[in-house]
Amino acid sequence: MTPMRIARIRFRGRSRYAVLIDDTLHLVRGGLVGRLEQTGEQIPLPDARVLAPVRPSKIVAIGLNYRSHLDERDLPAQPEPFLKAPSSLIGPGDAIVLPAGAGRVDEEAEVVAVIGRRARNITESEVDAHVLGFTCGNDVSARDWQQGDLQWWRAKSSDSFTAVGPWIVTGLDPEHIGLRARVNGTTVQEADTSELIHSIRRCIAHISSAITLEPGDLVFTGTPGTTVQLEPGDRVEIEVDGVGVLENPVVSSADRTVGRR
Amino acid sequence: MTPMRIARIRFRGRSRYAVLIDDTLHLVRGGLVGRLEQTGEQIPLPDARVLAPVRPSKIVAIGLNYRSHLDERDLPAQPEPFLKAPSSLIGPGDAIVLPAGAGRVDEEAEVVAVIGRRARNITESEVDAHVLGFTCGNDVSARDWQQGDLQWWRAKSSDSFTAVGPWIVTGLDPEHIGLRARVNGTTVQEADTSELIHSIRRCIAHISSAITLEPGDLVFTGTPGTTVQLEPGDRVEIEVDGVGVLENPVVSSADRTVGRR
Repeated sequence: MTPMRIARIRFRGRSRYAVLIDDTLHLVRGGLVGRLEQTGEQIPLPDARVLAPVRPSKIVAIGLNYRSHLDERDLPAQPEPFLKAPSSLIGPGDAIVLPAGAGRVDEEAEVVAVIGRRARNITESEVDAHVLGFTCGNDVSARDWQQGDLQWWRAKSSDSFTAVGPWIVTGLDPEHIGLRARVNGTTVQEADTSELIHSIRRCIAHISSAITLEPGDLVFTGTPGTTVQLEPGDRVEIEVDGVGVLENPVVSSADRTVGRR
Repeated sequence: MTPMRIARIRFRGRSRYAVLIDDTLHLVRGGLVGRLEQTGEQIPLPDARVLAPVRPSKIVAIGLNYRSHLDERDLPAQPEPFLKAPSSLIGPGDAIVLPAGAGRVDEEAEVVAVIGRRARNITESEVDAHVLGFTCGNDVSARDWQQGDLQWWRAKSSDSFTAVGPWIVTGLDPEHIGLRARVNGTTVQEADTSELIHSIRRCIAHISSAITLEPGDLVFTGTPGTTVQLEPGDRVEIEVDGVGVLENPVVSSADRTVGRR
């Protein structure tokens, strides 16, 4: 199947889905999991306000999933999921807000799977049929809170700590997707999903053994290497090969503006 | 203000809100945060199928919040929130499913706050104006997974692990709410929110310092004392004074039926 790029945009005050062909957005009827039937309405990409590609009911992320990110820690015997709050979601161009008192806040480049079909207790071989496609994700992480709190709630789910986009791309091979992070143009993380300790298929099957995944839910699949502390004024790019680049500015909480969803 | 009981029920195939007066449900127009204007339609409570009172975008719970539940652990210096997945939500009468391979699964009786107004970085004195009311909650917990996993994902968010209901009651004093759990008719937990280490107001203000709470979101406020392991065939009741009783049967995953939402 030809890869397809599916974007969510603001159009005449509403959120609408569109298929991106070359540099033109072709609006479609209905939601993400419909037939994506084009309405005939077209918008040049540079004219569109591109939103986070989904509004998930749930965001699950995998910790410690690249050897290069483990430091001294043991290899996890199984995928180690955690939850991120949907209220932390931002889209392309939205500001990552450094909370007052958070201390160190890092970027984390990740390949993100978008669920297309309800998945409950599925096997690894059934995963592809339940994944609509992939997008770029930044699992922004407050390291001091991650160390000091009982659980990773504000460390991973403070408002604006989950950046995704710019769109969903179908048909990628989950075993071979390159990803990297750039801060102010300098590459700070680079890896490929072939280096994952637990494959994307294994992670999604594992999550589904306990938690039903719904269409539009997001699965962050792990971050490689050494992440970088963010400072106000930084510009973070997460690039996923075959998808594109998710770019977000970083601001301090003093500059906080209400994020778009 | 006179306390009001607000229920969500299934009516002619749809989810509808109703105000419960004596034993009669009076249907209202619109959603939870509307004006609750009665339509004139009435249903005797025994005839109604009562659902979980909300479909939250987010569920936040507080760990280690009663001295009686701490064992040897230190008093937490601040509230210790964690997230529960909305997909784990069940309502009154729905089955709590013990997952295969989970080992020990316990009930946890909790007073649950239902957010009525968007809350971002609010103070303790502002909390009451952002809380619609309270309901009963069972924060079902898989103890072996809670110990063994990196984070509390399936330990607290396996499908069916978040029972709430039967309805929301307004006007309660959050500092003085009695709660208890019964398993097969025997009281196994009993406490009052006056015994909380961190008050409900403090917990909600603390959560809102990092995470925006949305209308319909749920805040579980902690469980007291010693919880009890659940076995297939058990019947668990969570009672909150001024609200009522939330009752759920317990089944094994072999008996699993699709939960209602």
